[in-house]
Amino acid sequence: MSDVRAAVMQAPRTLEVVEFPWPELEAGAVLMRVSLSGVCGTDKHTYRGETKQYAGTPHERELEYPLICGHENVGVVEAVGPGGAVDSDGRELRVGDRIVPGANVSCGACYFCLNKFPYYYCEHLVDYGNSLNCKLPPHLFGGWSEHMYLLPGTPIFRVPDELPDEVAVLTEVMAVTHGIDSARALAGTLGATPFGETVAVVGVGPLGLCHLIKARLVGAGKLIALDRFDSRLRLAEEFGASLTINVDSVDAAEREAAIREHTGGLGADIVVDCSGIPQTFPECLRIARYGGIVVEAGAFVDLGPVDVNPNSEICTKNVCVIGVGGETSTSYVPAMRLMASNLDRLPFNRIVTHRFPLEGAEEALEVAQRDGAMKVVMDPHRNGSGAE
Amino acid sequence: MSDVRAAVMQAPRTLEVVEFPWPELEAGAVLMRVSLSGVCGTDKHTYRGETKQYAGTPHERELEYPLICGHENVGVVEAVGPGGAVDSDGRELRVGDRIVPGANVSCGACYFCLNKFPYYYCEHLVDYGNSLNCKLPPHLFGGWSEHMYLLPGTPIFRVPDELPDEVAVLTEVMAVTHGIDSARALAGTLGATPFGETVAVVGVGPLGLCHLIKARLVGAGKLIALDRFDSRLRLAEEFGASLTINVDSVDAAEREAAIREHTGGLGADIVVDCSGIPQTFPECLRIARYGGIVVEAGAFVDLGPVDVNPNSEICTKNVCVIGVGGETSTSYVPAMRLMASNLDRLPFNRIVTHRFPLEGAEEALEVAQRDGAMKVVMDPHRNGSGAE
Amino acid sequence: MSDVRAAVMQAPRTLEVVEFPWPELEAGAVLMRVSLSGVCGTDKHTYRGETKQYAGTPHERELEYPLICGHENVGVVEAVGPGGAVDSDGRELRVGDRIVPGANVSCGACYFCLNKFPYYYCEHLVDYGNSLNCKLPPHLFGGWSEHMYLLPGTPIFRVPDELPDEVAVLTEVMAVTHGIDSARALAGTLGATPFGETVAVVGVGPLGLCHLIKARLVGAGKLIALDRFDSRLRLAEEFGASLTINVDSVDAAEREAAIREHTGGLGADIVVDCSGIPQTFPECLRIARYGGIVVEAGAFVDLGPVDVNPNSEICTKNVCVIGVGGETSTSYVPAMRLMASNLDRLPFNRIVTHRFPLEGAEEALEVAQRDGAMKVVMDPHRNGSGAE
Amino acid sequence: MSDVRAAVMQAPRTLEVVEFPWPELEAGAVLMRVSLSGVCGTDKHTYRGETKQYAGTPHERELEYPLICGHENVGVVEAVGPGGAVDSDGRELRVGDRIVPGANVSCGACYFCLNKFPYYYCEHLVDYGNSLNCKLPPHLFGGWSEHMYLLPGTPIFRVPDELPDEVAVLTEVMAVTHGIDSARALAGTLGATPFGETVAVVGVGPLGLCHLIKARLVGAGKLIALDRFDSRLRLAEEFGASLTINVDSVDAAEREAAIREHTGGLGADIVVDCSGIPQTFPECLRIARYGGIVVEAGAFVDLGPVDVNPNSEICTKNVCVIGVGGETSTSYVPAMRLMASNLDRLPFNRIVTHRFPLEGAEEALEVAQRDGAMKVVMDPHRNGSGAE
Repeated sequence: MSDVRAAVMQAPRTLEVVEFPWPELEAGAVLMRVSLSGVCGTDKHTYRGETKQYAGTPHERELEYPLICGHENVGVVEAVGPGGAVDSDGRELRVGDRIVPGANVSCGACYFCLNKFPYYYCEHLVDYGNSLNCKLPPHLFGGWSEHMYLLPGTPIFRVPDELPDEVAVLTEVMAVTHGIDSARALAGTLGATPFGETVAVVGVGPLGLCHLIKARLVGAGKLIALDRFDSRLRLAEEFGASLTINVDSVDAAEREAAIREHTGGLGADIVVDCSGIPQTFPECLRIARYGGIVVEAGAFVDLGPVDVNPNSEICTKNVCVIGVGGETSTSYVPAMRLMASNLDRLPFNRIVTHRFPLEGAEEALEVAQRDGAMKVVMDPHRNGSGAE
Repeated sequence: MSDVRAAVMQAPRTLEVVEFPWPELEAGAVLMRVSLSGVCGTDKHTYRGETKQYAGTPHERELEYPLICGHENVGVVEAVGPGGAVDSDGRELRVGDRIVPGANVSCGACYFCLNKFPYYYCEHLVDYGNSLNCKLPPHLFGGWSEHMYLLPGTPIFRVPDELPDEVAVLTEVMAVTHGIDSARALAGTLGATPFGETVAVVGVGPLGLCHLIKARLVGAGKLIALDRFDSRLRLAEEFGASLTINVDSVDAAEREAAIREHTGGLGADIVVDCSGIPQTFPECLRIARYGGIVVEAGAFVDLGPVDVNPNSEICTKNVCVIGVGGETSTSYVPAMRLMASNLDRLPFNRIVTHRFPLEGAEEALEVAQRDGAMKVVMDPHRNGSGAE
Repeated sequence: MSDVRAAVMQAPRTLEVVEFPWPELEAGAVLMRVSLSGVCGTDKHTYRGETKQYAGTPHERELEYPLICGHENVGVVEAVGPGGAVDSDGRELRVGDRIVPGANVSCGACYFCLNKFPYYYCEHLVDYGNSLNCKLPPHLFGGWSEHMYLLPGTPIFRVPDELPDEVAVLTEVMAVTHGIDSARALAGTLGATPFGETVAVVGVGPLGLCHLIKARLVGAGKLIALDRFDSRLRLAEEFGASLTINVDSVDAAEREAAIREHTGGLGADIVVDCSGIPQTFPECLRIARYGGIVVEAGAFVDLGPVDVNPNSEICTKNVCVIGVGGETSTSYVPAMRLMASNLDRLPFNRIVTHRFPLEGAEEALEVAQRDGAMKVVMDPHRNGSGAE
Repeated sequence: MSDVRAAVMQAPRTLEVVEFPWPELEAGAVLMRVSLSGVCGTDKHTYRGETKQYAGTPHERELEYPLICGHENVGVVEAVGPGGAVDSDGRELRVGDRIVPGANVSCGACYFCLNKFPYYYCEHLVDYGNSLNCKLPPHLFGGWSEHMYLLPGTPIFRVPDELPDEVAVLTEVMAVTHGIDSARALAGTLGATPFGETVAVVGVGPLGLCHLIKARLVGAGKLIALDRFDSRLRLAEEFGASLTINVDSVDAAEREAAIREHTGGLGADIVVDCSGIPQTFPECLRIARYGGIVVEAGAFVDLGPVDVNPNSEICTKNVCVIGVGGETSTSYVPAMRLMASNLDRLPFNRIVTHRFPLEGAEEALEVAQRDGAMKVVMDPHRNGSGAE
């Protein structure tokens, strides 16, 4: 069998395409031919070598080079290790099955695993494209590669036939949006009706947009989007945003006023912070309605503390906050179902804006931060070096 | 001011158009010009005088003739009593405002009212078109009338501009579907992921169809519809049903097998019983998955008991049941928002299949039970007697 | 090492003490010296060979003789297999640790296991003292034995130092009471305040009593107990029952009237059915308040269907039902903590009424059904044959 | 009828006993003979005239002198206005009934009232002893008075016979502890088992102690208390605290270490902040376990912002925060039931440490802040001026 080509971060700011030997599969492992692999916001910090000072989760802080990035993946089963492997429904996987693999592997033996907490709470979590480097065989622990090696115990999710790859590649991001579900469940116990509510999303890059889409598809009412890029706000509108605000052209007081006006004076029932910077957190507390809920799902990089007033912004305003640090394994399949049954109603095919071959990984990282880009993906079997 | 014309049930099987004097408004009352008023499944029993033996709720059993039916209403504020009245957001109502009034008025002083339970739990609930007859002035307590008198304390819900009358008239029915919300909240505490689940609806007349639509709009995955009328099943498909079964041509064992096959062998996560007959209740328990939830929202007429096995159908199967006997006042506005934001994605304008003038009330009752009809409504300001 | 003595059901109605060879431990297995092992209500059916016609769960129906009963266990780690084993907190187990083992082992690879449902939902569940017979080595799959073999993957729960064996042996039963938690969570979304509610328990044998105790310890208000044995009702009173009713001396109408009087006319907020017979299920629906919740946790034996009226008893009464078919693995440790911190406030030491040596297993089964007995346990290291 | 004596804050730092005329009752009003009335932590700020700069809620900021403090009350119905009045169960109130009145009156006509949110969310809330001053007749709007005038619409809660006044006076405070219920409901949707959890309370003055007691009575496992007064920590121990920490003698790092050690390295599942100062809020975020919940229920005075890190303390730690700004009307009766059924198990009679006559109001305010005091109450019908 031929070698496997992958884009490797050899060291900070050094990205090159490397060939690895075709891996041998241990029992329970799966080899996946990668169809598409997303570029995540934090990959840029990894590229810059800023993992120690900035990286948000303990797992990310420990990462070592060389590394193959890519934890938002969709692909096809190329081979299954001895003894076979099952999908998340317990059904045997076969060569040719289209799959989305979980972005992490949990240990099954720590307090959180043994007590049925979300799998990403695991005390010994390993992350594809992150804490799993490519120093030792079988090397292929990231999606920016022609093939990817899935360790035994990796949750593997079958892709519905009708869901195209360029939508399925969003599954992992969509599986991070469970803060919406928690916010709604909590709201239901605080006196609020659990649908038709106003949801504001601060920062509608890929993660924020997926939150907005999730809110839309689970029956939110008005949707509000804030961002500094107009291209993102336009896309949010196409997914149903009824109010969009460019934060570079509207100051904080005006933003709050606009949101109150749009909500009959109340403010947003649920606010999702996906900006990636800490300064938006207090703003989220302020634009929430009295008794509202803020989901903090975007602060994956440690940029220091901000001022929060426990009296006026939390206690006497009855505001709740839900911190979300990863995606639940149980959300992948429902997320794919939700997207599949709404393909004809929402422009999912416009979310992936750029596709790069392995040689274009560096450019992909740059483009992903710019106006005009939403989700940028690697397409490892494409030739050439530029975007499509 | 001119008299007000209304379709009056003078006695069982005696329906005629009667003129009432223009009412004088007490403080807090509102006079609504009726735009459309729905025909409900149980109205036929009222017409036949079967309220004592069949009627489901204690309130309905007490009803007396003469009566103006019609509790699913949309209209326009014609006049406001001294001191004014507010909508459900606390905003002052003005002449010309388009509104959906609550179907019931609660007392505010009983155990259930004082403890914030759903308003229809009220121990002294009065129902428009039901327990509120038209014997005494101001008479106009039902929607099958040119104008309707809304008592002080009636919850009044403002209709979004973009929502046409023929969709707004479905609001009350849609507000009965909170069993879906409860089922989902409960599922979330039992280990299930609260979106993307399979929902089966048994009986997709207007109430069942609204449950299916609600499930669709709050992010369910696969939708299954069962009915004896093909016209209803076709409409369910247009709202997203992925499996439809005509119960007259497929027997119970085959139905269960088809549902299991459609759900990977599991059965439906949530089953909603809207058939109106008790025999479907045990079937609902059977087509639910292990650990699934059954919403009993359609047994509004007492047709006696059925056999239920507490061991195999409930206890050891871990099945839950949620009984729903009315609509929550807090669901009206969210329901309108949900429909308004999905007008371009789902064929809401096809749900009202027939519109009758007051003179056609009797025919409307007949048509409402037939294949080919979904929601039949009264259009009190239309002339003539036939359907449109 | 010496042989291990166990009480074995060789065939229906044939119970004898048998010696088995000291087992060799596979990797991940644990050998537990049994301190106490409870006699469960359904064990009598197993003894009578009535498993095919009566047994409630699919697992139980498959059971084969010879069998060592006993799935409610407390003991001490005697040996740990190669590679070690961890408790439910992920901490290494050592010889001498006092433990309660889970009553079941789940497969980890089926739909329910992979999706974080309660462990007893597992499609391939094996039950100690039930589906796990003692035909083949290592034989020791039940607690009515001096030692018990715990398979790899068995959840193992550490016993708090202050919790005596005769209370710890109740842990498994207490872990079945999660219906109380679900009922409360559901009530909280239906408008009820989630503490201080009235809980009625129908059938206060060990399972019912544990539900009553759980309700008491999680802050229920009034507690009502119904049973046919006065000794049980007296014990329920000691745990806080404010109203007790002997169903043999008070007829159904009077019972309902007494419960309404005790609850200001409302009925019980939560009713738990632990009678073991189906006839009580409709009674539970009737004594629940309007909008109340019934937990069906006792119908573990299939005694056929009963009449249920979906209209008056469920739909228009807004009653919910929660079926509970087993114990959650995540409840064992919290249950032990709850009992440990209330040892000085409630008479837990009075729940185990009889202790039998292995030779007395048959008598233990008889005694367990009688007035005067609450929890009967086997004490495998005691000599003699009579109760203590 | 004789005049009514009350302790009146005439202006900042000016407290004197004043006589008011016996009031005439409007329809729906109730006159209550005050048995006991609590001194609340924020009353001191009112006394000092610091309401503008410090007061936490908008209602409190608007308060005007002269004022009769006292919103934690228990008393006896002295007279009922024309037309009668009902308790929270809808039962007619009679002269001589022992009652706890709600601390606030909601308008019934704003967005929050009309949509069944907690009553204290009301946009036009009036507070006894706070926003309701005593300038105009009938004057008697606070509990530091021989009699108190309860406006029509005041929720009124009947006191169980077995609950003594010195415990019933804690009801309002106990009704603020619903954050525990919300935290638990939320935890149940995040994967945690909803009982037996570790609860830490930071600041165990009366509000904190009531949270600790509530946690204890609804089935929490380990209880941890932090305070700067040893007398408070000792009382917390008597109510079940398994770890107490004096924050003046143990620094922050050691506190966190002690809590981790006490919880197997995890941290507290639920942390309740009742310190009244903002600096403890970040500490609460830190001592919570990964995925834990912080209830901010004590920041009723605005003492400015603190540093919060949205990355490490919320997002990637999956921590949730629940802000609680008042007491729910639906919690009063369940709270009284809970206390009544545990009178013999917990030393409720030790919570009220000092009782003052009206003449001692000023001293009462001083004593309430000191070591050695827990709840200080006014006893308006006592003679003399010193504490008892």
